[in-house]
Amino acid sequence: MRVAVLGTGMVGTALATKLAELGHVVTMGSRSADNEDATRWASQVGGEASHGTFEDAAAAGQIVVNATAGGASLDALSAAGERNLAGKVLIDVANSLDSSGGMPPTLSVMGDDSLGEQIQRAFPEAMVVKALNTMSCRVMVDPARVPGDHDVLICGDDESAKAGARELLASFGWPERSIIDLGDISAARGMEAYVLLWLRLFMALDTGDLNIKVAR
Amino acid sequence: MRVAVLGTGMVGTALATKLAELGHVVTMGSRSADNEDATRWASQVGGEASHGTFEDAAAAGQIVVNATAGGASLDALSAAGERNLAGKVLIDVANSLDSSGGMPPTLSVMGDDSLGEQIQRAFPEAMVVKALNTMSCRVMVDPARVPGDHDVLICGDDESAKAGARELLASFGWPERSIIDLGDISAARGMEAYVLLWLRLFMALDTGDLNIKVAR
Repeated sequence: MRVAVLGTGMVGTALATKLAELGHVVTMGSRSADNEDATRWASQVGGEASHGTFEDAAAAGQIVVNATAGGASLDALSAAGERNLAGKVLIDVANSLDSSGGMPPTLSVMGDDSLGEQIQRAFPEAMVVKALNTMSCRVMVDPARVPGDHDVLICGDDESAKAGARELLASFGWPERSIIDLGDISAARGMEAYVLLWLRLFMALDTGDLNIKVAR
Repeated sequence: MRVAVLGTGMVGTALATKLAELGHVVTMGSRSADNEDATRWASQVGGEASHGTFEDAAAAGQIVVNATAGGASLDALSAAGERNLAGKVLIDVANSLDSSGGMPPTLSVMGDDSLGEQIQRAFPEAMVVKALNTMSCRVMVDPARVPGDHDVLICGDDESAKAGARELLASFGWPERSIIDLGDISAARGMEAYVLLWLRLFMALDTGDLNIKVAR
């Protein structure tokens, strides 16, 4: 499949690399066509991996992954272009982390709204699935890093888009039993708010190789 | 031990009942000395169980449990009286749920502050330990309701107070390995924000008998 990964940071790189390893044709998107990180990534991965602007990437992808910083996501997606997102599964892994008040960060949107909902509202023809934002990028693409059973949460308004996201997650190594569908995109409020707990777990346990299992 | 439980709702009742079963001398506190729920609770439990105003309860308790609604907690604790909280372990299980915008609720304090911190700031001589706010009251006092391993989070500024909270949690049935200390009281930001995810898990899984296990 042709996949656009928007974002050239750790998260975008980890996802783009995994997707390329799985045989997908990945275009990494960034603000400028000659982004250094994206250029290096594409040359390291080789094969059909490429890079370009947000617009180039989104136009090329059958699926779009938003791995930009949460505070920049709406701008990045606007640059990608509404027409390049329409009708596509848009997997949003971003968090609206706000470090302006110091560390640890808080979130710039939370409680009665979420970044996932903001993106769905701004791009109503995209099929947004919130996923993977509840863990480090290493765990996203290699769940076995964390011992034992643990879960990945998804939510979104479109059932077929969530089915597509499930397949992608399964290809990353997530067992079917570990994928929990929380319902429509408003559940992103819970998935994003959890990140504030994740930060505290990371600080207290001194490892990012952690995740939650929902016991029930 | 003599324990004050502030709050006469489901959470306060569940905790007060468990504490009485464990042999503690429990005083349930509420706004008025003749609160119906508290009166009924004390007569049903019998023995040394009693009820009274927030002030009566806090004065009687060697440990104080805040099980009032989060939006009313600061007022309830003010009524309890700073001198009745000073030097005591104050276990805060409350969440600042705000349903004014409809269901599911959001939180009235979150992100760069928390109810736990607000309470610690308002009552600097109390030793606030945030605990148990991340689950239903049934699970709080009967962790075995939820199958498998799952965890209870605590945080607070005073180590001895947290040691006391650990003992209480152990007496409720929480194994030592399942008690995760997240550090100082500012970690309440994470514990309280998680409640927005708990609500979504509750809605999607249609059970309150759920909790998280931190895999690592």
